[in-house]
Amino acid sequence: MAAAPEAGASASPADAELVELVEKNLAEAVAGLELAPLLDEATRYALLGGGKRLRPILVLRACEAVGGRIEAALPAAVAMECVHAFSLVHDDLPAMDDDDLRRGRPTTHKVYGEDVAILVGDLLQGLAAESALKSPVEPLPVTVAVLEGSRRMIEGQVHDTVGGFPDDLVEEIDRLRLIHELKTAALIRASCRVGAIVGGGDPLVLDRYGAAIGLMFQVVDDILDETQSTEHLGKTGGKDRRSGKRTYPALLGLEESRAEVARLEAAAVSSLGDLGPPAEPLRALARRLAVRTR
Amino acid sequence: MAAAPEAGASASPADAELVELVEKNLAEAVAGLELAPLLDEATRYALLGGGKRLRPILVLRACEAVGGRIEAALPAAVAMECVHAFSLVHDDLPAMDDDDLRRGRPTTHKVYGEDVAILVGDLLQGLAAESALKSPVEPLPVTVAVLEGSRRMIEGQVHDTVGGFPDDLVEEIDRLRLIHELKTAALIRASCRVGAIVGGGDPLVLDRYGAAIGLMFQVVDDILDETQSTEHLGKTGGKDRRSGKRTYPALLGLEESRAEVARLEAAAVSSLGDLGPPAEPLRALARRLAVRTR
Repeated sequence: MAAAPEAGASASPADAELVELVEKNLAEAVAGLELAPLLDEATRYALLGGGKRLRPILVLRACEAVGGRIEAALPAAVAMECVHAFSLVHDDLPAMDDDDLRRGRPTTHKVYGEDVAILVGDLLQGLAAESALKSPVEPLPVTVAVLEGSRRMIEGQVHDTVGGFPDDLVEEIDRLRLIHELKTAALIRASCRVGAIVGGGDPLVLDRYGAAIGLMFQVVDDILDETQSTEHLGKTGGKDRRSGKRTYPALLGLEESRAEVARLEAAAVSSLGDLGPPAEPLRALARRLAVRTR
Repeated sequence: MAAAPEAGASASPADAELVELVEKNLAEAVAGLELAPLLDEATRYALLGGGKRLRPILVLRACEAVGGRIEAALPAAVAMECVHAFSLVHDDLPAMDDDDLRRGRPTTHKVYGEDVAILVGDLLQGLAAESALKSPVEPLPVTVAVLEGSRRMIEGQVHDTVGGFPDDLVEEIDRLRLIHELKTAALIRASCRVGAIVGGGDPLVLDRYGAAIGLMFQVVDDILDETQSTEHLGKTGGKDRRSGKRTYPALLGLEESRAEVARLEAAAVSSLGDLGPPAEPLRALARRLAVRTR
């Protein structure tokens, strides 16, 4: 990691440095598979095409927040981003959300075909577990947490796509919250958990932080889908509203949705309690995610 | 396990008993996830709808062959069957092989829709790794082997579906062998490997056995597709020939394909070398797989 010399050994690296570090490790994870040319290219397209890298950054920041070494959390960070990338590739398929655009580029199936996109998603899901198993610290609990987060995310996709809710869940807002908690927050929570596990801290503290920012992230997404243009988002805007999907603004209105974001941001910051200065990047991240515009 | 009392403690259980044991453990693995009703039903449909259970049986028999306890290999056996089931669900999708029939029943996407089928496949792939991690013996190497087999299988699917072969592989028969070795044999090899790992034996010996019967299994499949009816197979017969797919009979003729089966059977039996009586079920299995008619 290229830290400025005057930053000193204890200074926290900037997010941009972490993104660079994560992308280098993602590229190395794919290279390590020694795939045949086409599959290699399609996998790189799906995994290395930009994005916020929120989940791996959370793994690294959570590890840092409990006093761990950031480098030790890199395999787990790669694992979480692979789960996220796999979910996007499958979610964009015609039989699912049928999206042509992702991160301002054609989606994987638009470039390589549906068959390859299905298989690239499968490959990335497997790579996630293979990377998690390479964690130098606690590989078993790390991989268990990655897989549990991934499974909850898949359950959320089912509810979002076809319903199939638990029989006792009848209120629309409760169903929407379940979708958001599973489909989006579960992976974000798992990212915070595995970072805490690698760093030797209390996974429960970071789990609470992850639950708050995870739900907040999706409520903000709902608000942006309602208020921002396709060009600005780099993915199709207004799609949820047009397709009649449940969203926070649709069920609660924009004002109450924004109030929910503020509550969740406060809950996230407060959950970090007495973790002190090493958790400062996580506090700043909660604030930034609350006010993001894409 | 309900063994006949007069069989004695050291007698090897019959295959039918192992199938029953595997299916009980598969059902328990799904129940343990506590899925919402629809996803639970669709997952059971995909995983518990019959089949030969070849891969889990191989895990258990390989474990037995090297002197291990069959019960210790059950989580790994469940893992291998979950990988197999996930691959079938995705392989049958319209964007892939577009099959309506599997094991004599409508395929998962015909019953539950493509979206649910994609997600059930994803869920089963994750469940495979979650089960492997529950191995009471060597969970890390077991899970690594399961995931490597799964990844090779996915690579084989890519070659089978869209090509993308390594640049130096130009002969049709070499490309077909690569497809078969990856798409079919890799999981069968991995099954034998993980059984040997759990049983505390030499994974390489069982790997050689698995490589031989794995390729043999697919050559027999090619022959059956050419010679048997849809009704007899429980899946669409003659499909490979009609779709112009590479097969052993198409490239080498039926007679040479049958000779290849005989050679691979001999190689499988010979690879077991001095493993003695505990490996007898594996020898019998190689013979049975060579002459199977469905």
